Amino acid sequence: MECLRAGKRTARKLFVLRSGEGLDRIRSLASDIPVKECQRGELDRMTKNAVHQGVILECDPVPLLRLDKWLDVERKDPLLVVLDGIEDPQNLGAIVRSAAAFGANGVLFGQDRSAPVSAVAVKAAAGAMEYVDLIEVKNLARAMDTLRDSGFTVAALDGHGEQMIWDMPSEGPLALIIGSEGKGVRKMIKRSADMILRIPIEGPISSLNASVSAAVALAEWKRIKMQD
Amino acid sequence: MECLRAGKRTARKLFVLRSGEGLDRIRSLASDIPVKECQRGELDRMTKNAVHQGVILECDPVPLLRLDKWLDVERKDPLLVVLDGIEDPQNLGAIVRSAAAFGANGVLFGQDRSAPVSAVAVKAAAGAMEYVDLIEVKNLARAMDTLRDSGFTVAALDGHGEQMIWDMPSEGPLALIIGSEGKGVRKMIKRSADMILRIPIEGPISSLNASVSAAVALAEWKRIKMQD
Repeated sequence: MECLRAGKRTARKLFVLRSGEGLDRIRSLASDIPVKECQRGELDRMTKNAVHQGVILECDPVPLLRLDKWLDVERKDPLLVVLDGIEDPQNLGAIVRSAAAFGANGVLFGQDRSAPVSAVAVKAAAGAMEYVDLIEVKNLARAMDTLRDSGFTVAALDGHGEQMIWDMPSEGPLALIIGSEGKGVRKMIKRSADMILRIPIEGPISSLNASVSAAVALAEWKRIKMQD
Repeated sequence: MECLRAGKRTARKLFVLRSGEGLDRIRSLASDIPVKECQRGELDRMTKNAVHQGVILECDPVPLLRLDKWLDVERKDPLLVVLDGIEDPQNLGAIVRSAAAFGANGVLFGQDRSAPVSAVAVKAAAGAMEYVDLIEVKNLARAMDTLRDSGFTVAALDGHGEQMIWDMPSEGPLALIIGSEGKGVRKMIKRSADMILRIPIEGPISSLNASVSAAVALAEWKRIKMQD
């Protein structure tokens, strides 16, 4: 539904469950592409038995942007979420969802050691892939340098950070680096950061899921913007 | 490992993968119970092919406490996370993990419409079930009355809340109600709340995963405590 509504990419054909309920809204959004009614078995075969909720949309892939092209567009105090080694597509999707909800402008990731923007990730993002710019770079460390040269403050989340997440700047372009749950942000990437920020956790449970960490930091960014 | 370390419940026997690596720490924690080395196939059969990472611990279930007994213990400004209709054990586990990480004292849920404290939930909690009190009640609405009578401020998270999460009180006992992703906190439960709090999201993506919402509110509680 969000794919059809946002119009970021070309939709080609909609397959819906014959006599499926609650599909009126999505059908009305697909008024200018072919709609085919299918039996459940056909839909199951098309998704190879993955959950489909009675709807399949054939469409172009989510567009991946180049960083230099993305930086060409003027934005007021943009927030860019940078993923370092997020390999789980569920986590990728969940982070994109939070990024969209809290008003981040884009999500940037490297070509290697990254979850693919797969159907699993798109589904976990609950429509948010259509509203956040996705930027893919060859070399993450070099991309951080490019961002700094473009006026971004580069902040990395890390359990050993000396500053707290509420110390992030309330103004100016910000890049927020999220590391993988097991390994965190890599040393070579941390070295290129202007600040290392810590989420206030303590006690025997000393780590959070990567998508939870991302959401907490994104919510803090939004709070600072609203309360400042 | 956290089960053995915390000692909240009785452990009976440890099964480990023969020549499994990185198991020294858990074996040393199990020094006073029998340890059996197994082939991978045996472990797989015991978990019915669920992921086991080479370790299975036979132990008592996580103890579920009664609210009146829990309230008998004096605590300084406790935070209690209340779950209304969280039916997904993954979400239950993730919320317990965040509750422990941000220093909540307990997680309370009703007997009905709740995810069971299953192996899936315990694994998703990444050890946190051993450090947070789990309280089960028959009637959630009545439990909210009991909490209010005991001096708790009862706050519910809701996308239509008039106050923001940063308006939560910085002092005194607090109960924070998290609803299910689809339905949110039920009306009858919201009616018994002193305040309805909103997470600052906007735009086309207007909802968050329940475990993400919980983590964001818990992090905000912790920030207020630390910054106040």
